[in-house]
Amino acid sequence: MYKLVLIRHGESQWNKENRFTGWTDVDLSPKGIEEAQNAGKALKEKGFCFQFAYTSYLKRAIKTLNEVLDKMDLLWLPVQKTWRLNEKHYGILQGLNKREMVEKYGEEQVLLWRRSYDICPPPLPADDPRHPNNDPRYANIDDPAAKPATESLKDTVDRIIPYWESEIKVKLIENQQIIIAAHGNSLRAIVKYLKNISNEEIIKLNLPTGIPYVFEFDTQFNLLKDYFLADEETLQKQMEAVANQGKKEN
Amino acid sequence: MYKLVLIRHGESQWNKENRFTGWTDVDLSPKGIEEAQNAGKALKEKGFCFQFAYTSYLKRAIKTLNEVLDKMDLLWLPVQKTWRLNEKHYGILQGLNKREMVEKYGEEQVLLWRRSYDICPPPLPADDPRHPNNDPRYANIDDPAAKPATESLKDTVDRIIPYWESEIKVKLIENQQIIIAAHGNSLRAIVKYLKNISNEEIIKLNLPTGIPYVFEFDTQFNLLKDYFLADEETLQKQMEAVANQGKKEN
Repeated sequence: MYKLVLIRHGESQWNKENRFTGWTDVDLSPKGIEEAQNAGKALKEKGFCFQFAYTSYLKRAIKTLNEVLDKMDLLWLPVQKTWRLNEKHYGILQGLNKREMVEKYGEEQVLLWRRSYDICPPPLPADDPRHPNNDPRYANIDDPAAKPATESLKDTVDRIIPYWESEIKVKLIENQQIIIAAHGNSLRAIVKYLKNISNEEIIKLNLPTGIPYVFEFDTQFNLLKDYFLADEETLQKQMEAVANQGKKEN
Repeated sequence: MYKLVLIRHGESQWNKENRFTGWTDVDLSPKGIEEAQNAGKALKEKGFCFQFAYTSYLKRAIKTLNEVLDKMDLLWLPVQKTWRLNEKHYGILQGLNKREMVEKYGEEQVLLWRRSYDICPPPLPADDPRHPNNDPRYANIDDPAAKPATESLKDTVDRIIPYWESEIKVKLIENQQIIIAAHGNSLRAIVKYLKNISNEEIIKLNLPTGIPYVFEFDTQFNLLKDYFLADEETLQKQMEAVANQGKKEN
């Protein structure tokens, strides 16, 4: 049997400020660090033991992973960081908050950017310092998908699924138990693929932050079950927090 | 020009308790974390920017690296963890403190274990839970050198230098600036090799904890200069602290 654990990073500094983050490299808040530590404790308590880990190029996911591995006494694990697991790129919305956006673009337009599967926010200009072209961490990557000026959820799915098939799935079969620490939309992409969720339905899925989401597969790689590693009360609380955060989006 | 930075992990929990650590996976103390953070700030201030990082399988080195990279805003860097950069294995001395050792084995014998280049402390029995045979992190490594029951400094040198030549040096030439976060003796091995220091002299070299040690090479890989990244006063203080720690050994 194979076990895959997905974990969405804990609360970031910008969640509190009601701002779109995307590829902006915002840090975890102290509460976000605590969420990650609790996830690590829960995984250890339930007897999970990984042999490999994936995360994005963004520190809120990397730090979430580091806290989880530390609590599990697995800091020595090999960790593959990849831009493919980055959050969806939010174009010029990055850094803006919801109120500012509605004032600038109108309620209807903002809803379209936030709730459609294949519509992108307006792109960052190529010379914007926030454009991935101007960030050294993406400088040596040839794939143009590594330097988006904006993305729809569909674009995010399209850059992750080939990597899932050629890299992550292979590692999972080799290693049996792996963990991926990433973001609301990059994890939506994986969940959509694994559970065959429609474009309309995936948009409504709000993953709770800092709660391990476990997928179990048989040796033929059929999905046996998926569940969150939290008691009903904690889960409910986190789901509500994320639903409210949904109004601010991450 | 190539720049290599070595950093010895900050103070660990067992430093304070006067105990031999070796391959025991002891955590950093709060002071150790602060030392690592200060190193990261100093490196950033001086304009260092790495493209690749190495560390050991032991959390005191991994956490030191993570703190340094965090302060430099380089958490996204690829990090290679390897048992070859682990501290020298101290055999049955691991966990004992100096006073206990002297009581048990006598002053002269203890001095021999601590100060000779090629004498090993007595080995751990194969069924000791502390033996690397019984630690899952070394389970998938074929090289028998990855499962020592004890080591001399010579053994430590012998497992690191081939890796330096085939891996680290190659990455340094590819990337120009890399950092290695490791341990007193694994870093001694590298310094001995790079500076061609004799067996007798290398034993006397006490690297300060948490101070970046910079090596600059020309494009023919000739060593141009090496220096610690600290003002004279800080360096003096750290050197003295390590010299005193030397009496307790790490």
